This record gives sequence, C-alpha cells and structure tokens, in this order.
Amino acid sequence: MKDYPEAGELSKRIQAFQSILQNNNIDGALILQSADIVYFCGTYQNAQLYIPAFGCPVLMVRRSMERIDPTIIPLEVKVFRNSKDIGDILLAKGISESATLGMELDVVPVNIFRRLERIISCSFVDVSQYIKELRMVKSSYEISLLRDSAAMLENVFCSIPGLLKEGISELELAAEIELIARRSGHIGLIRVRGFNQDFYYGSLLAGSNGGVPSYFDGPLGGTGLCPAFPFGVSRHLIGVGEPIMVDYVGTVNGYQVDMSRVFALGYLPDDLLYAQEVAIAIQNTIASHARPGVLWSRLYDMAISMAEEAGLSKYFMGCDEKVKFIGHGIGLELNELPIIGKGINKELQTNMALAIEPKFVFPGRGAVGVENTFIVTPVGLERLSQLTDVEVIV
Amino acid sequence: MKDYPEAGELSKRIQAFQSILQNNNIDGALILQSADIVYFCGTYQNAQLYIPAFGCPVLMVRRSMERIDPTIIPLEVKVFRNSKDIGDILLAKGISESATLGMELDVVPVNIFRRLERIISCSFVDVSQYIKELRMVKSSYEISLLRDSAAMLENVFCSIPGLLKEGISELELAAEIELIARRSGHIGLIRVRGFNQDFYYGSLLAGSNGGVPSYFDGPLGGTGLCPAFPFGVSRHLIGVGEPIMVDYVGTVNGYQVDMSRVFALGYLPDDLLYAQEVAIAIQNTIASHARPGVLWSRLYDMAISMAEEAGLSKYFMGCDEKVKFIGHGIGLELNELPIIGKGINKELQTNMALAIEPKFVFPGRGAVGVENTFIVTPVGLERLSQLTDVEVIV
Repeated sequence: MKDYPEAGELSKRIQAFQSILQNNNIDGALILQSADIVYFCGTYQNAQLYIPAFGCPVLMVRRSMERIDPTIIPLEVKVFRNSKDIGDILLAKGISESATLGMELDVVPVNIFRRLERIISCSFVDVSQYIKELRMVKSSYEISLLRDSAAMLENVFCSIPGLLKEGISELELAAEIELIARRSGHIGLIRVRGFNQDFYYGSLLAGSNGGVPSYFDGPLGGTGLCPAFPFGVSRHLIGVGEPIMVDYVGTVNGYQVDMSRVFALGYLPDDLLYAQEVAIAIQNTIASHARPGVLWSRLYDMAISMAEEAGLSKYFMGCDEKVKFIGHGIGLELNELPIIGKGINKELQTNMALAIEPKFVFPGRGAVGVENTFIVTPVGLERLSQLTDVEVIV
Repeated sequence: MKDYPEAGELSKRIQAFQSILQNNNIDGALILQSADIVYFCGTYQNAQLYIPAFGCPVLMVRRSMERIDPTIIPLEVKVFRNSKDIGDILLAKGISESATLGMELDVVPVNIFRRLERIISCSFVDVSQYIKELRMVKSSYEISLLRDSAAMLENVFCSIPGLLKEGISELELAAEIELIARRSGHIGLIRVRGFNQDFYYGSLLAGSNGGVPSYFDGPLGGTGLCPAFPFGVSRHLIGVGEPIMVDYVGTVNGYQVDMSRVFALGYLPDDLLYAQEVAIAIQNTIASHARPGVLWSRLYDMAISMAEEAGLSKYFMGCDEKVKFIGHGIGLELNELPIIGKGINKELQTNMALAIEPKFVFPGRGAVGVENTFIVTPVGLERLSQLTDVEVIV
C-alpha cells in the first residue's frame, strides 16, 4: 500500500522516544491511542504497543493480526486476547513492582487504566506530553505526506467558485465540495486528540451562520443541522453580499492540513473586505517572523496587536467567546503542538507543522479571515499551498 | 431548530436516571460525555451536567453559553471556566466527603478524572452502565427520530443501482452515495462510544475487499485508503460478478440507523447467492422471535445454529477473526445496548432499537448479508425500512 513509512523512519521515531524515556527514568511506555500507534508503527490495528526504554518494542495485536506485516513493522509482534496477556508480556519484559510505566493518561479512559493497574504492578506516569512534543517536529517523510494532503485540498478549494450560485444552501454547497474531496481520496476520518472532540471534516458558514459560536475550541462555530450536533453547516440559503467562510481539513494519508478561504456572490461590504485584508496581513506578518527560536506567544501577541491597531480586536478570533490561540500544530491529529497562544513561552523549531488562522467574527453578519498550513524553516514559514488568500467574489 | 425535544421528554429521562441514582445510594452524577449530555439536555455544548439524586440538575457551560436556551432546557444553567468552578458548584449542592458521585468512567480520560478527584472530595463510582441501560429503551419521540434517519438512509440506498457501472472504483461510488446522503441532511458525525473508535460513516466493499478484516469490532473491515486509516473503501475497480457490500450509518438528527445491502453487476456466483439467502432467513427468523422477555443470547444462538445448519458457520460474522455478536443497540451512539451476543443472558424490552446484521465473509471473494434497524415491539421486531433485503443485480 502507498505511503507506508520505511522501517528506518519508524526506528528513528521509536529511538527518539526511547531517549526521552531514558532521560526521565521511565522503564517503558504502553501506548494505546490510535494516532500514537500510527506514529510509531505506520499503521493501526486493535493493538497495544510496548516501547521499553532499552531494547525492542512489542506490538500486541488483538485484531487484525492478518493486517500486520512483520516485514514492514520493525517490532516484535504478539497476539493478545485480554489485559492479562498484556500483563504477562510486560512482566516478561521486566515491568514489575519497582518499574515506572508511561501511558497516555490524557486520553486513556479511567476504566481501561484501572483494569491495567490491577494487572500490572508498577508505578504509572503520564507520557502524553512527551509524545506530543516528539510528534510536533515532523520528519521530511511526514512533510511529504502533508504536501500530498495540501495538494488535494488546494484542488478542492479551486473548484468552489464554479459551484457557487445564488440560493444554493450551505448544506448543498458543502455536499458538492465534499464529493470532490472524497473523490480525490479524502479519507474522511479526522483525528482530534482528547475527549468529546465531536468533529466533521469541514464547515461552510455563510452570512450570519459564520457568527454563531459553538462548543468547539475554534474561532468558528455554526448552527449545524440538528441540536444533537450543533456545529457547522446549516440549511441557510446563500445570498448576494454574504461572506462565505469555507474551512476544511484535508487528508489523503492520515496527515491533515487545514485551510480556510472566503467567497462571496456579487460583492462584500467594505468593512468585511477591510477585515479580510487585515487577516491576510496578520498571517503574512506571522509567516515572515516565525522561525526557529521565536516564542509561540510572541506570534500570538503580534497578531493581537495588529488586530488592535486595525481597530478590530472586538471581532478577532471570536466575538463574545474568543479562543486564545491564532494557530495550532497539525499532523496525525488536528490539535497538535505548537499552540500559537497566549502566554506560551516555548520556542518554534525547524520542521514544526502549523495552521495559522487569523479570523474575524461579526455576530449577525458572518466570519472572514484566512487559514493555511505551514512548515517552520530557518528563514520563516513555508506555505503548503499557493492558492490566493484574497476573498473570491463570483 | 427542528427536532428539539420537549421539556417533558427531557424531564422524564432525568427523573428515570434520578430513580436509578436513588436506588443505588448515589448522591448525584457528573455527566461529561457529549452523547449523554445530548440525551439529558437535548443538545450539546462544552458543558458538564450535574444530576443530583434529588432536586434540580445543573448544566455548567464553558462554551457556548449563547447557544443554551434556558426556556427549552429544564435545568439550572451556570457558567464555568475551570474545574474549580465545578467543585464549588457541586460543594454547594452537597457533594462533600461523605457523598458518592457517579461519573462515566468508561469514557472519561484519567487526567480529567484526576483533576476532578483533586477538587471534589467524595467517593466516585462508575455510572456508565446505568446510563447505557437507561438509553437502550427508546421513547416514542426517540423512535420518531430513528424513523426520520431511516427514511433518509432508505432513499440513499434506493439511488445505488443507478450509480453502479463496471469499472467504477469503490471510492468513486462511495463519494456519489455520500453526496446523496449529505444533500439529504446527513450530519456526518457518527458517535461511537469508547476509546479509539476511529470510524467513517460508511463503507463500500466490493469483491475481495469485503473479505479483508480490520481493527474495528464488526464483521466487515476493508483495506481503507491509507495505512493510517486501514478501514473501509479502497480504490478497487468494481467488476462483474463481485458482491458489493454497502454498509452505511445514517442520521439526520443525531439518532443513527444502520443498513447494509448487497449489489452486483451482471450476476453473483450461486454459493454467494445461497449465503445471501441464508443471511436474510437468519434476520427474518430473529425478527419474528425477538420480543420482550427473550434473552439476547437466545437470538445469537439461533443465528449461529442457522448458519451451522446451512453449512456456512466458517464464514459467519467474519472468517478467521469473527465478532461475537449478530446485532447491536443503536441510537445516539452506534454501539449501544442490547448486544445480541454470545452468553449475554439479559431480556429484550419493548422499544429497544437494534441493528441486526447477519453477514458472511469469504476471504478473497467478498462479503454478503443484510442489516436493518428494528424496534422491539410486543409482537416481534418492527423494521424501520421497507427496502428489499434481496441482492440487487444491475
């Protein structure tokens, strides 16, 4: 199958994680979450991955064993049926009472953890932050997958002006866009780390729907199609002069890119055009200042200052319930590190992937702004798409 | 917005849960998961719901407060910013050291639980099983929502013969089907309870792809489009004489129905036609025997016996890695109770909703079978769709 990482790639990731375990006196880590297993193994099955601080990792597979190709995955592979089997395998690997075992305690549910705790006698520590920090810097192989997803998503966005017509509903337009995305190999699944991250891969918000907030921790919301999933696309019929904010996540290989553009029929009011210009200027300023060593918070502060200077801070990144970031890491999950957010004084590193999304939300009128996915390089951000950021008026 | 439950409906659900809390000496429950919040509140925001054993529940909302209509939701509504606020509110409600507080420990991650444990001094117990048992019996309002989703999905399946042509890829055909589903109001989001339930709302497996197992706990797998999401649709070009297994989950309102049908171009080999007949006979036998009081395991055993008598047990519900159920409850989540599975000696009840899915998997050749969503009535199962179960040969 295409896009299967080479064994050398996976070995490097595992070795890097083993160094972290060694430096923190952790004897090993039991990895359960699908995105993390994909990261270390190149694929996912119903499996648990044990990575010792020293020595060969073991992939314990419940199903489907048939789908694991031991010539591709550079690991010991064993079958397991229940938690007891996991306990036996870890005990044989030296995880006993005096040992410290890492787990992804940010996502593993309490009952699963307690079952393991009863079976494996050792101390448990949370290693989720280490995994997130490891995954935030991408290899050149990972960047090539991000480029493939970006090329697909850029093509999808190019088709939007041809689909726009007066009176088409948000839902109908979204359905047409998603047809093109899916035909182009969009895998449909978006992984968002954490609890209750109900999400669909795209959102298209015209006029006032762009100003409706939601549970989701992003600047955009939308009413959605029903109260049980009150997020995103509605049945609103698109009219002339409304900002149509299109925000989609694209992936053809598990690596995700995030992109937003504004479209309109006929015209857009001058104040919204102005806000759109400011959003693009914020993005470009950040892109030219972001380089290894720059603090995440500095980019956030820069964006906030520019929105203030433009007299638009009231509407920046949400209106009454603003989000406190203007960009986020992206890859196998939508909400990776870095968080380009308030007060986070960590440094950018080469080959981080991030989506920058300065947006303005005008209640009752809609949302404007832009979003692109970038790679951090020594000379600034490299943009994964060449598509114009300027609003497209049809 | 359409399909908002009446306050009386929500009050009944909350009162029923309060009775369960009272009978089990639990002082209250802190509900965090979106599907459960939708069940008790009719909608979801970034919120936590406290249901005391006695008295008025409190919905604590982080965002978006603006989306909560206190005239629709029959609860006390409060804003919260952090876990400390939750602790203060619960303390004011009498949750102190001697109290017992229920939580959904099957899904809440360890770190979230530990944060609450540090702030709220009390004993914690798992109430997830109570919630699942409460939700497995549907109200007539919920059944009406299931009917609406079933009508949408039936229409989508009716369009499939018109889309089928030799040489079309699984992905292309799936994209066309999903266009129709989405246009018809499919909300896109499928809620599957539990950890690592990576899922896309439909799957279309032609020929040998129908025989490929996966991580997912269902009879069907499929290679998928990339190793990072090795499940479902592939780029295989559909040929004459292959079984095309189409399995989609449909929902226009949060309530989900599950449906599978088999299609083919030209013909199907006789042995696959025979297996398809057996699957339909199994479904119909179960539908006529399933009524209140019948054990879940009895229906499972009945299906296993019929597959054996037909000489097809090797292929029933998977080949080398079979699943141990032939049906599952369905509603706001795809994997609800009841589980029509091996050794589960619980009784069916009126107004349970369940999907029955007898399927045969032939490695290298494909999958056949049928799936419908039903309601348990005093005289057997009522089917939510009238679409023929027989394979459709174009």
